[in-house]
Amino acid sequence: MNKPFQDKQNKFVCPVSIQRYPNVLLAHGGGGRLMNNLIEKMFIPTLGASHLKSKHDGALVELPTRRAAFTTDSYVVRPLFFPGGDIGKLAVNGTVNDLAMCGARPLYMGTSFILEEGLSMETLWRVVQSMRAAADESGVELVTGDTKVVERGKGDGLYINTTGIGMIEHDQVVAPSSLEQGDVIVLNGDIGRHGMAIMTVREHLAFENVIESDCAPLWDLVRELLDAGVEIHCLRDLTRGGLASALVEISEAAGRPIHIEEREVPISEEVRGACEILGLEPFHVANEGRFVAFIASKDAERALVLMRKHPLGHSARIIGEVKKGNVARVTMKSLIGTSRIVHMLSGEQLPRIC
Amino acid sequence: MNKPFQDKQNKFVCPVSIQRYPNVLLAHGGGGRLMNNLIEKMFIPTLGASHLKSKHDGALVELPTRRAAFTTDSYVVRPLFFPGGDIGKLAVNGTVNDLAMCGARPLYMGTSFILEEGLSMETLWRVVQSMRAAADESGVELVTGDTKVVERGKGDGLYINTTGIGMIEHDQVVAPSSLEQGDVIVLNGDIGRHGMAIMTVREHLAFENVIESDCAPLWDLVRELLDAGVEIHCLRDLTRGGLASALVEISEAAGRPIHIEEREVPISEEVRGACEILGLEPFHVANEGRFVAFIASKDAERALVLMRKHPLGHSARIIGEVKKGNVARVTMKSLIGTSRIVHMLSGEQLPRIC
Repeated sequence: MNKPFQDKQNKFVCPVSIQRYPNVLLAHGGGGRLMNNLIEKMFIPTLGASHLKSKHDGALVELPTRRAAFTTDSYVVRPLFFPGGDIGKLAVNGTVNDLAMCGARPLYMGTSFILEEGLSMETLWRVVQSMRAAADESGVELVTGDTKVVERGKGDGLYINTTGIGMIEHDQVVAPSSLEQGDVIVLNGDIGRHGMAIMTVREHLAFENVIESDCAPLWDLVRELLDAGVEIHCLRDLTRGGLASALVEISEAAGRPIHIEEREVPISEEVRGACEILGLEPFHVANEGRFVAFIASKDAERALVLMRKHPLGHSARIIGEVKKGNVARVTMKSLIGTSRIVHMLSGEQLPRIC
Repeated sequence: MNKPFQDKQNKFVCPVSIQRYPNVLLAHGGGGRLMNNLIEKMFIPTLGASHLKSKHDGALVELPTRRAAFTTDSYVVRPLFFPGGDIGKLAVNGTVNDLAMCGARPLYMGTSFILEEGLSMETLWRVVQSMRAAADESGVELVTGDTKVVERGKGDGLYINTTGIGMIEHDQVVAPSSLEQGDVIVLNGDIGRHGMAIMTVREHLAFENVIESDCAPLWDLVRELLDAGVEIHCLRDLTRGGLASALVEISEAAGRPIHIEEREVPISEEVRGACEILGLEPFHVANEGRFVAFIASKDAERALVLMRKHPLGHSARIIGEVKKGNVARVTMKSLIGTSRIVHMLSGEQLPRIC
């Protein structure tokens, strides 16, 4: 679908009359003419969803393989726009990444909006455009959707749910249960960017270099590994709870000990500085474009080379391995050479980071 | 999965310690230990989702057919509990029905919660149990999920998104594009119950007989029609915007005129009375267990007999037909014999009805 909303200066213009409807009204979620206009004028042409809800209760889709991955996530990030992204880009990439972490090619996506009465129509329009751009980048088709409006004070501008179906086009079982002793853990880049991008905006911290979110779609990088026949045992993106929580979850799910080396985990100066100021632990801070891959040791070097050739993996590092035994525990050799147990984030650290 | 939370009196007890956590905290959405506890102790055992999010980023599923339906909906109904249902039952049945209206057998479902900080844990627990009961009733498997928490005053207790994948196990194309002149329109029961159940609670209206929501899963009834080989051209449940909006949408999508007879559309005395008091038009009021089926005229009588044998169709009626021509217009012969054009609900009527 092409982009039909350019004015004479070739700038995109909002397809819903902003003069007439500068803000979202309760009626935009009422199931009547106003909701239909919003769907038909903004959502369908922009998101390219030819069979969106207004025309049918669901999308009819063709599934090319029998093995699939299925995922859903709601996004409540605050603020809606942040350095390196916005709630729309985050919502699409987040679901793309959840599918990629299952080793699945993202194919179809559903999007559901909970709008707060009074949300600026222009804000919605910017977010919707951002979702389309993100979907195009990953080649995922937005096929179905839903719109609800809640009263002023009962939301926070905009919440988005995305849900995805991905196809598994290989024979590998990419899951914690596939972990084996000796598996090498590769991390695709420096950690803590997304969480600190959000927190520096919220806390009005100023650094010489703005911390940008690492929000990015990971399927293309995962696909390269799969296409090369790299034996991948498990993948996990490092979202809420950060690297530490992801490793603990995998260790617990697999019932195997994991060991990592702190000095191998890249953290930028800005992120480290911001974490110190706010009293946060970078290993617990959320990322939106970083993941760990558990690779059969025979393929580890090859995987590392492949990842480093990719824009989203150029600073990839081997950070640790799966150890012998059946104890669920993550240990880390610290910078000063001591070994300690890594824990999952225990309480609240960064609310509404995604 | 059995129900593991019975105390000695055989009553269900909340698996998360209510004494320790009487209310939802921000940390329950933080990606750390508290969120994991909520997922592992309440969501996974109750919803029966053996491969829910905490263990993997998405669910790996087997798809028995290539043709599928895919749908997503967010639920923001207020109040959370109402006569005849609650937000959990509504969220599961709503997605089951969207799939059924595509002629698809509901197979997998994802559930995503947006909780407001301070929500009573017992309320959440009641809703989760209700979701499980509804899922069991339709034989749908809850396979993946997500949990977010927003600050007090940024939500309204609880919003739920459900998303579903359904399998199309027949060769019919159930969609507005299949409409043909002469198709008979069958309605499975009286209209307006769900909307008026909500409104009478909100407006504190008291009637001799409480109006209960018609919230119900429609797949079993649709399946009976499909299994009998009834030629179904289109199905649509009568949710937001009611019967009138659904017919106008279908007429517009199909580019065909539709005619109905007002006297054939059943409306209970209670619903009619409540609508009069509140100044609402029953044809625009939402339903959650009512649908129209566009049936090839040769099969109309057979479909009606089948539907009337089913508990959710015992008062089914033929209410109209698809007329000749290619004009998108819905007309209705009124009780007094005049004919008028039926319009889609134009603005806001009943906010947050689902």
